[in-house]
Amino acid sequence: MKMPAENAELALLLEVSGTPKPGNVDRRRDLDDLRFEHFLAGAVGAREGLQSVEDGGPVGEAFERAVAGMADQQGGNTQFGALLLLVPLVRAAAADELSSEGVREIVESTTVEDAADFYRAFEHCSVFVDDPPAEAAELDVRRGNEAIPAVEDHEVTLCDVMELGDDADDVAREWTGGFERSFHAAKRIEALDGPLSERGAAVFLELLARRPDTLVTKQHGEAVADRVMTRAQAAREGDRALIEEFADELVDTGINPGTTADITAAGLFIALERGAEV
Amino acid sequence: MKMPAENAELALLLEVSGTPKPGNVDRRRDLDDLRFEHFLAGAVGAREGLQSVEDGGPVGEAFERAVAGMADQQGGNTQFGALLLLVPLVRAAAADELSSEGVREIVESTTVEDAADFYRAFEHCSVFVDDPPAEAAELDVRRGNEAIPAVEDHEVTLCDVMELGDDADDVAREWTGGFERSFHAAKRIEALDGPLSERGAAVFLELLARRPDTLVTKQHGEAVADRVMTRAQAAREGDRALIEEFADELVDTGINPGTTADITAAGLFIALERGAEV
Repeated sequence: MKMPAENAELALLLEVSGTPKPGNVDRRRDLDDLRFEHFLAGAVGAREGLQSVEDGGPVGEAFERAVAGMADQQGGNTQFGALLLLVPLVRAAAADELSSEGVREIVESTTVEDAADFYRAFEHCSVFVDDPPAEAAELDVRRGNEAIPAVEDHEVTLCDVMELGDDADDVAREWTGGFERSFHAAKRIEALDGPLSERGAAVFLELLARRPDTLVTKQHGEAVADRVMTRAQAAREGDRALIEEFADELVDTGINPGTTADITAAGLFIALERGAEV
Repeated sequence: MKMPAENAELALLLEVSGTPKPGNVDRRRDLDDLRFEHFLAGAVGAREGLQSVEDGGPVGEAFERAVAGMADQQGGNTQFGALLLLVPLVRAAAADELSSEGVREIVESTTVEDAADFYRAFEHCSVFVDDPPAEAAELDVRRGNEAIPAVEDHEVTLCDVMELGDDADDVAREWTGGFERSFHAAKRIEALDGPLSERGAAVFLELLARRPDTLVTKQHGEAVADRVMTRAQAAREGDRALIEEFADELVDTGINPGTTADITAAGLFIALERGAEV
């Protein structure tokens, strides 16, 4: 049996390997400046931070370390969102409380120091995020370290930060909503047969067909995100060739449903922890 | 900068990802019962043992731990030979002595206890090996734990065990010959451009064209190993399509030049340690 930090790293590797995963780097597709091997190096580099949260280190600090290690390659941001989901899940698994309730408690017990470390993580790589609500401009994550005095002045916990973002970002929404889609993804992965990375790719497409990807919304607007969702529905009803065509089209147009991939990685982790085997 | 155990794990991942790598699992090819994701899980599982030798633990014990972790997946033996090369190389890198001389000293300082742990490693998975020389039948590695009393009675070190096998096995030959081909592979990888995993695949084919693969010799005889070498030479002179055809042919006929892949992984590790970047 693998330990939680090992399973988290393996989940990142299985996620990126699953193909076809339309719009994302996968075992068969590279993007122009973001290649499969950047994801391999990102997963390897993240392990130390994942180990730290397994060992009981603070969630924010472990996340910052995981991101620093992940970013130690030339491709830029490969797994920021996935790690943000995995860190509290690893903590929950290490405490033998890997459930929606268990991870909710971890989220609710995050501190101002966790929030400060979360902002520090943005110094390690460029992350695509929306403007924050007007009243929260000084807490804009893109300010990185510069926002920390405001975080401390207002005594904002990491859970509070996620509440600021959970309308626009489905990773934050997982944090404030008991990781509902992550656990759902795990259940779906467990219900399928075959190699785990292929099950991950199938569930990625299921998730994409059910809800617009918030990274696509942020980068290309709601209409495009809706269209991608509808296309994913059609692709699921078609054959493999239709999915491959959809995958090529998204890569060609630079549309990257990265949030859905993050949730897939979280689902793979939960499935591995519950005994799914490679 | 990544630490040696991280680079060793990354080298395993880059090696298996490089494609086309005729006869081996790669980013585009699975074998029947041995899939890409088994190699991912093998690399993740090996990390703890690699960390142990980075931290100064005994070579034999670290190898046995790495193999135990590697074998914690359903595909069987994925990276036994590669780990046997990587463990002393990680130790050399951790001591800042990553050279032919540096690793030779590590090999020569191995003990009887290292040899015993090496035999223990054979308990974790099935490894394809030849009959030992007649006078060394009681030291047959396939006996696993049962051979340990003989190892101890005869005060056989791990270096001695490798000397018993270095005629028939090119991993053992690396151990007793200063890792000559591993360092050569690193130099060739460094001389190429492009993504590291692709450079690894190109150097794999170079190595295969220069010397018969000893796993192929053991499994299919010298004539087949020679023919694979000659075919590799022709494939290198042809275009990509010819290499792909050669790759498909080897997979179809069950010919697996695994030793050459092991040496490629060692070369990738050395290149990463010397500053090659993903």
